[in-house]
Amino acid sequence: MNANATASQASVSESNRSRILQHLYHNGISSRAQIAKALELTPAAITKITARLLEAGVISETGDLEGSKNRRSIGLKLDTAQFHVVGVKFARSLVEVGLFDLAGRRISLEDLPTVSEDTIPATLATIHEHVNRLIASDDAIVAVGIAVPGPYLQDQGRTAVVSSMTSWRSVNFLAEFGEAFPVPVFIEQDARAGALAQYLFDRDSTCENLAYYLIGEGVGLGVIDNGRLIDGSQGAATEIGHISIDVHGIPCDCGNVGCLERYCSAVAIHQRLLDTDIVPDAGSMTHTEACRALFAAADAGDGRAAALIHEVGRYAGYGCVTILNAYNPARIVVGDIVSEAGQPLLDAIHEVVAERAIPDIADETTIAISPLPTDATVTGAAAVAITQFLEHPSVFFDDV
Amino acid sequence: MNANATASQASVSESNRSRILQHLYHNGISSRAQIAKALELTPAAITKITARLLEAGVISETGDLEGSKNRRSIGLKLDTAQFHVVGVKFARSLVEVGLFDLAGRRISLEDLPTVSEDTIPATLATIHEHVNRLIASDDAIVAVGIAVPGPYLQDQGRTAVVSSMTSWRSVNFLAEFGEAFPVPVFIEQDARAGALAQYLFDRDSTCENLAYYLIGEGVGLGVIDNGRLIDGSQGAATEIGHISIDVHGIPCDCGNVGCLERYCSAVAIHQRLLDTDIVPDAGSMTHTEACRALFAAADAGDGRAAALIHEVGRYAGYGCVTILNAYNPARIVVGDIVSEAGQPLLDAIHEVVAERAIPDIADETTIAISPLPTDATVTGAAAVAITQFLEHPSVFFDDV
Repeated sequence: MNANATASQASVSESNRSRILQHLYHNGISSRAQIAKALELTPAAITKITARLLEAGVISETGDLEGSKNRRSIGLKLDTAQFHVVGVKFARSLVEVGLFDLAGRRISLEDLPTVSEDTIPATLATIHEHVNRLIASDDAIVAVGIAVPGPYLQDQGRTAVVSSMTSWRSVNFLAEFGEAFPVPVFIEQDARAGALAQYLFDRDSTCENLAYYLIGEGVGLGVIDNGRLIDGSQGAATEIGHISIDVHGIPCDCGNVGCLERYCSAVAIHQRLLDTDIVPDAGSMTHTEACRALFAAADAGDGRAAALIHEVGRYAGYGCVTILNAYNPARIVVGDIVSEAGQPLLDAIHEVVAERAIPDIADETTIAISPLPTDATVTGAAAVAITQFLEHPSVFFDDV
Repeated sequence: MNANATASQASVSESNRSRILQHLYHNGISSRAQIAKALELTPAAITKITARLLEAGVISETGDLEGSKNRRSIGLKLDTAQFHVVGVKFARSLVEVGLFDLAGRRISLEDLPTVSEDTIPATLATIHEHVNRLIASDDAIVAVGIAVPGPYLQDQGRTAVVSSMTSWRSVNFLAEFGEAFPVPVFIEQDARAGALAQYLFDRDSTCENLAYYLIGEGVGLGVIDNGRLIDGSQGAATEIGHISIDVHGIPCDCGNVGCLERYCSAVAIHQRLLDTDIVPDAGSMTHTEACRALFAAADAGDGRAAALIHEVGRYAGYGCVTILNAYNPARIVVGDIVSEAGQPLLDAIHEVVAERAIPDIADETTIAISPLPTDATVTGAAAVAITQFLEHPSVFFDDV
């Protein structure tokens, strides 16, 4: 089952370059001899690959590790503070741009003005201008990562369905941004980007079987199975938001019926609020504002608000049961706007999981609210770029 | 994301052994120099690993490949006919035992007597006796692969839920068979075993993103994503049979409500037949016999039979839409008993997929009835053993 066995020579070389970089990323300063031993690579391959990485400035030499004059005992280092990446998060009405280093430390973050159907072209222009300005002012930036709503078709560069703001569907992210900047650009579905961020940066989530369950303007999912993101053939796997929980239920723009995101997204919550007076001025609010007003009302003791959160939480719980049966992760991290409801939401999810999941599986699964801020997806966008930097170094440096 | 970067030395060595074996399995006779070049391993590592594999008799030397006397140009070979594996398939009422070589060629196949709740202990005894007799009579047998209904908990050795024959739940397959034979035993969920068989042996399915959709006494799924089986943390991922398609639907033994297998398994079909007189003597038939009688009635022009198959096919189609959104495979292969309904079933599946799947994704997905015989799962059981042989050679030979 190991595709390496038939991989071409070029991809084997790139794979070994990547293994060396990842070794340095995860293990810190190491000598050539230590790397050679850990990865069972030839001294010749190590010498060749590290020489190119040094020449390209990707890694640097530190002092002698073992007190000898042997070149193979000199320390090699990947300085995570030396390289920066830009992360751009698109939701439907929200766009955020952040600057991060390779360890995921945030250097800056900016929210762009709220987007409506009419302002998409202006928003795209603002992103071009903003990212170009960041890159012009910071030589350390090596890549841009972009997180977009799914189902995102990797090869085509388009989101196949955007339930609540269909104009996004006409944006080809690959055509718009693929070559837009002087550094490489990588685009990934938002929840999958969030899963990479949890995997790389959240100390509690560094397990090899991790799901990031994004409940925001849309509902999305990214799953890391045995240390690897589940992709699908077009990069459109793990589209939990469009998995039906009721084949006789509410029709969705995607063509399916009873899609999960029709019941527990921020958009669905906002719609429900418009039919009640729990949040009287919901009609003039953004989806995020409306959700936050609901959560505040519940915190203030409004029983109807608490009941609506419980109902939404039960639907989120049905989604969790599907995630358990579909992916059997060891940990599910719930993030994005709706997760701000906090413990009452988590309680409703746990209630449904206790009722409906297979006990042997539920007992071994942790479900938690993301400890990263709600803007985890922008960190995820950075994680997409960082993962590419570590896995495909030759993309970043012509002479590697 | 590459776990290799932090793998222990022992697992790196085993990984390189496996890469060499897989190279020989997929590419045929190769010299040490060719392997070293293809895998970028050190000549020392190649010499050491191949010496051990030769000593253990796993591989053999053929003539000189390049007309020189150089030892590194002598051909090395993994003879797939030289090693045999036993495959055992458990369904609920069906047990099959087959003998295969490493290329998946079937040498023999035997169906054991139909199992009922009362005869499980006798069936287990028969399997012990049968497999031991096979091993005693054939020195080439290196492993036993066992395929069991899911959700199968790899670490515990138990199936967590068996809807229609609950006594199986009390069988601990690992305790019963883990050490039962003089060769290593590997146990895997049935549909996942079927996916491995399609991947290894079906020329049409050698794509890297493949789903095997088992619609038999239970409903199961195995998914290969980018060449690797999706496992989950307990080996219980891809349990499509227990994913709800209707959270307000029919309760299932697993605790969930509206589980897919309640609507389109052979057991569900049999239940439906008992409520009609389409197959008058359905009450005295096994699930398989009842399904086959239904399919024969439809073939003979019975409109009610055709309507029932269409209805079941639509439910199978809802499952396919979930598979597309959950895993985005390039190919879905439908197998096991219910797939014997053939084209009318496939037509109903395609009808639902055309209505409900995201068009950009549906357009890029092939859905086909398995070209392997209905007993593909027993071939799958063999594929489980063969995959282990190629991935973990040291398990098979003490001196490797």
